[in-house]
Amino acid sequence: MASLSLLRQNSFFSATLSSQPKPKYASPGRVRMSLQENAPTIAVVGVTGAVGQEFLSVLSDRDFPYSSIKMLASKRSAGRRLTFEDKEYVVEELTAESFDGVDIALFSAGGSISKEFGPIAVERGAIVVDNSSAFRMDENVPLVIPEVNPEAMANIKVGMGKGALIANPNCSTIICLMAATPLHRRAKVLRMVVSTYQAASGAGAAAMEELVLQTREVLEGKPPTCKIFNRQYAFNLFSHNAPVLSNGYNEEEMKLVKETRKIWNDKDVKVTATCIRVPVMRAHAESVNLQFETPLDEDTARDILKNAPGVVVIDDRESNNFPTPLEVSNKDDVAVGRIRRDLSQDGNQGLDIFVCGDQIRKGAALNAIQIAEMLL
Amino acid sequence: MASLSLLRQNSFFSATLSSQPKPKYASPGRVRMSLQENAPTIAVVGVTGAVGQEFLSVLSDRDFPYSSIKMLASKRSAGRRLTFEDKEYVVEELTAESFDGVDIALFSAGGSISKEFGPIAVERGAIVVDNSSAFRMDENVPLVIPEVNPEAMANIKVGMGKGALIANPNCSTIICLMAATPLHRRAKVLRMVVSTYQAASGAGAAAMEELVLQTREVLEGKPPTCKIFNRQYAFNLFSHNAPVLSNGYNEEEMKLVKETRKIWNDKDVKVTATCIRVPVMRAHAESVNLQFETPLDEDTARDILKNAPGVVVIDDRESNNFPTPLEVSNKDDVAVGRIRRDLSQDGNQGLDIFVCGDQIRKGAALNAIQIAEMLL
Repeated sequence: MASLSLLRQNSFFSATLSSQPKPKYASPGRVRMSLQENAPTIAVVGVTGAVGQEFLSVLSDRDFPYSSIKMLASKRSAGRRLTFEDKEYVVEELTAESFDGVDIALFSAGGSISKEFGPIAVERGAIVVDNSSAFRMDENVPLVIPEVNPEAMANIKVGMGKGALIANPNCSTIICLMAATPLHRRAKVLRMVVSTYQAASGAGAAAMEELVLQTREVLEGKPPTCKIFNRQYAFNLFSHNAPVLSNGYNEEEMKLVKETRKIWNDKDVKVTATCIRVPVMRAHAESVNLQFETPLDEDTARDILKNAPGVVVIDDRESNNFPTPLEVSNKDDVAVGRIRRDLSQDGNQGLDIFVCGDQIRKGAALNAIQIAEMLL
Repeated sequence: MASLSLLRQNSFFSATLSSQPKPKYASPGRVRMSLQENAPTIAVVGVTGAVGQEFLSVLSDRDFPYSSIKMLASKRSAGRRLTFEDKEYVVEELTAESFDGVDIALFSAGGSISKEFGPIAVERGAIVVDNSSAFRMDENVPLVIPEVNPEAMANIKVGMGKGALIANPNCSTIICLMAATPLHRRAKVLRMVVSTYQAASGAGAAAMEELVLQTREVLEGKPPTCKIFNRQYAFNLFSHNAPVLSNGYNEEEMKLVKETRKIWNDKDVKVTATCIRVPVMRAHAESVNLQFETPLDEDTARDILKNAPGVVVIDDRESNNFPTPLEVSNKDDVAVGRIRRDLSQDGNQGLDIFVCGDQIRKGAALNAIQIAEMLL
């Protein structure tokens, strides 16, 4: 994970949002409150991956209470040592027995691991918060963004005596709906046209490393190494690498279509999406065109977004200052800007907005930990 | 221009489109036909810029006939020497007298130079093909994409005894309409939602150099040099740097809105656009959502595009192979893919497509030279 932590530490990959309130985790010297005797037991599945590492970072940042924590990964990573909150842990191989006595299991090890071990963990009494797509569209599994639809998991709590599964939505869906939902609540979104600008991080730590490697190679005039992606990524962009379905949409796009309907509990909302991978390190951007049932003017929309939890508005037309992926990297809030009346719709029936969010943080780990917080 | 030519020569900034027919200019050893006694006299204004250099490259590639050619630029660049078709030229300072005896003047030196010297050139009998935005929306000036609306300049020819002005559309408009127009002709586009992924080249050679410099700096952990843009561009993206108007759209976006109406001669077509600068070197990409008056299924649309001049279809769902900016760099054709029925519209009323085109070539120099070819 050497180069991943390099990426996180390098401030030029993650500029500071000077206008934002300091995030909690920026307080040095604070007393750690999270390791507590009667707190829940936690397991992190896929702890050596990009999102797994961020799970740990967010747990610590938010003082998430725990009495013990298991670091789980594949056999390949088992035996590796890592330090968390000043304590050393050995990464254990994931097995069915891993979940005995676990209250909350945070999964981010890919869909097939979730499909195999998620139900086992539930059977052994754990509440699983799953970051993969394995159970998202299962009608018995809540798909939750805490700021958007907390009611979907109202009956699930640690200590209720049985396990359960909760799915974390896809990163693009979370980032989009963090901005669209407050507007949807006021004016009802009828149709949404989304184009994404997705970072390397969405394909994992190895993809971020490949982007750095390729960029060095291209600058030196060498052929780029293409292992994770089958084409040059440096100084280039391409249609998202998810498999393309028979309807011509790729799976990433269909997640936005289907997950929006489920999270909003609105079978009729019309969504289309074009998902593109751009040579950015770890935050996604999305251009979102909205069509409303009820007119909504841009000033009201801006006020609504300014007051929305987890959302920050950066919308300075005069100095051409709007959200960028770099600014939101390593940040909790989703940033929204370019809020304007859509000239292609009548009156105030539509808006264009531009949204940026840290794909690993709110797009994955933070959202999952916020779900876990609601279990307590 | 040292590093600009470096960028052009480096094959990793411009991969080869192996599936495409070889462009004309790839034929080594051919006999130059372009320097001819009775051919028109040409002036290139802004010859040291990125588009100016490409004007020369395209003139040569296409064997454009000329009897003489003037290399014009600002006082700062005057006196520089350059070689064109094996002949050495000295760059001359642009003055009113520069246009005496000139038949065709190709302008790409920014809007203020066009505003000042365009009318002077016309007065002295030259036909000006202007790549700036200065005259695009002037109702007396044709705004032309040769494949789209050649009729707009039907009456303008070299040898008609008087000067004239013809405007080259904005790069984003050209690339979008190359793909949208063939579909518009069949099914009439009612509304278009565009999100762009624009390359450094759109801001000129210096911006391309800054992207390279910044990328090196960021990889070395140094703070990025921000001269052309006021923020980090390497591994980042941002809302287009054009000034933002009071309606919240930036000037780049309004060009797409207004130029589309003028080129299609359709005051009612509804267009919205979000223009974003991405860290790609020299070709733009655009995600385009189309709404039609008449239903148009995706197979018919694909066939129409396959037969459209200047368009190549790259739409292989199985191998996830779609257009990328790198593949179209230094290429004449605009590439279209991701052609699919828009799930957010009823039946076949809408399509999503993804378009890539070389911003300097078809987005600027090639289109201007194609206009000049129609003058002969």
